[in-house]
Amino acid sequence: MNANTSFDPQSFRAALGTFTTGVTIITSRGVDNEPVGVTANSFNSVSLNPPMVLWSLAKNARSLSTFSQAKHWNVHVLSHEQEELSSRFARQGEDKFAGIELDKGISTAPLLPQCTARFQCRTAFQYEGGDHVIFVGEVLAFDYCDRAPLAFQSGQYALATRQPGNALRLGSPPPPECSYTEDLLGYLLGRAHYQLLDELRQRLSSQQLDEHAFFVLSVLCIRDSLTLEELDQFVGYTGYSVTPATMRFLEKQGLVAIERIAGVNRYVLTGTGREASLEEIALAKAVEQDVVARLGEVDAKMLKVLLKRLIATTDCGLPDLWGPR
Amino acid sequence: MNANTSFDPQSFRAALGTFTTGVTIITSRGVDNEPVGVTANSFNSVSLNPPMVLWSLAKNARSLSTFSQAKHWNVHVLSHEQEELSSRFARQGEDKFAGIELDKGISTAPLLPQCTARFQCRTAFQYEGGDHVIFVGEVLAFDYCDRAPLAFQSGQYALATRQPGNALRLGSPPPPECSYTEDLLGYLLGRAHYQLLDELRQRLSSQQLDEHAFFVLSVLCIRDSLTLEELDQFVGYTGYSVTPATMRFLEKQGLVAIERIAGVNRYVLTGTGREASLEEIALAKAVEQDVVARLGEVDAKMLKVLLKRLIATTDCGLPDLWGPR
Repeated sequence: MNANTSFDPQSFRAALGTFTTGVTIITSRGVDNEPVGVTANSFNSVSLNPPMVLWSLAKNARSLSTFSQAKHWNVHVLSHEQEELSSRFARQGEDKFAGIELDKGISTAPLLPQCTARFQCRTAFQYEGGDHVIFVGEVLAFDYCDRAPLAFQSGQYALATRQPGNALRLGSPPPPECSYTEDLLGYLLGRAHYQLLDELRQRLSSQQLDEHAFFVLSVLCIRDSLTLEELDQFVGYTGYSVTPATMRFLEKQGLVAIERIAGVNRYVLTGTGREASLEEIALAKAVEQDVVARLGEVDAKMLKVLLKRLIATTDCGLPDLWGPR
Repeated sequence: MNANTSFDPQSFRAALGTFTTGVTIITSRGVDNEPVGVTANSFNSVSLNPPMVLWSLAKNARSLSTFSQAKHWNVHVLSHEQEELSSRFARQGEDKFAGIELDKGISTAPLLPQCTARFQCRTAFQYEGGDHVIFVGEVLAFDYCDRAPLAFQSGQYALATRQPGNALRLGSPPPPECSYTEDLLGYLLGRAHYQLLDELRQRLSSQQLDEHAFFVLSVLCIRDSLTLEELDQFVGYTGYSVTPATMRFLEKQGLVAIERIAGVNRYVLTGTGREASLEEIALAKAVEQDVVARLGEVDAKMLKVLLKRLIATTDCGLPDLWGPR
């Protein structure tokens, strides 16, 4: 540990970056009527009564003189959908407000729409803070909504989900000697997969089909005219081998047809097959919509991100289903 | 929108809470040598050169006089494993430091171990901030590590994962007219499930078993002596019905045996069956350990949390596998 102030700024920034923050844009308007706005994560609450918040701005920032003279400024806590807006206001030298339809606030300071929360402030104090000025504002008005906020951690945009503590259990805790627990990723993934598949499987079952037939039809719906071997390359990772018998069955059901091209059998969807596949995917999407509504948008988004990371890390080289042939 | 300062404090707090923060514990030591410490999420960085940070403390806090007189205080950015420590330092009237072995710092201010980052500060300024005092400190020393930090959002502890932007794609983007995309939760869950299962399935296959046999053996390993119907209640959600033929096969393999109790056939694991099941779960755990190491601890933890939420929200009443009989 290094007990002096000449330490490496990059390392100091990295240490500070471990503190998670939200992302705000702070706006004001100069005496020349020019709007200014900066992205800042140095925002924080200060006081409840009187209601006060603070943030700090580098002394060498272009907008410093405007903010220093301003009587009012607005803090916008950005939603997870405003990452681009955050980047725009973090850059210099462009018309940051171009194309944004401002809301009407209580002062002339620009009020950006579609944020998670907004605080309209009157400058209360400006304090010395090294190479920054600390602005403390009295909150004159605020509003907020349930749009999930954007977070920032270690120099990257982030999403946050609440920690459930011990509250979230699916079943009783296992006895200590039991090797099987509900916390196994494999168990959770399997159970989630099968439960989500349930409704689709009921529909398939009423058509004498199963999820394996669904996988084959899906692949053919994405890229038609595949050989048995090609189909198997796309589906085989499910543990289900695509065999001539599978394809004969689907042919008998009128869902696929064989085309003989250059001496090789290739499978294509029939009109009925394509229709069936599209109905199935529509059902899968309806199920998903319902689940996402119950999980919440951000949790669903995070779950997808994490599943993709897991898939990328366990991928043994599945061919690109949507790639060029 | 309400443009005055007499607005509802609860609502104001909720609006402020949408701004995500990390969680810190700030410590100091009084002239009487008594250590003080408070949990605060009002921490933020201020200046790089000189290195400065700030936080604020309620004027009615018990520790105010100590902090006001203190020349030094330490900021600890808590890791996601220090939720309990956070709660302890947020409460009043107990010996907060009991049982904690402090690290040696550059001042007498207590230095807590196992944090994500620590900043040892000398008081630079104390500023008026409504019902709070704003403390600005010059950072004399700091350290940090890669323990994932604890986050706080809307009054709850949270975990954060970085937003991947558009960088994380498994395959090429589908053409616009394609109904199938890699962003479908059902696709991602299925693919993650099957990929994670791959190694276990190879082992099972070498023993002429498949994942369905694994499910049956697992259930019997958790609770022995089940009827066919009971087994099916636990396993049926996978889309795989447990039939007499399944059980005859496992019996022939020497993995299960039948006990006839009160005129009813009940299945139990044989010694070989239990051994096989424990070997399989050990393999599943080894696979998981490997995956978690590659995903990172926090992403793995978050993935589990989100999968549990998904399972809870799509559960059609699966019986409690670990519950009392």
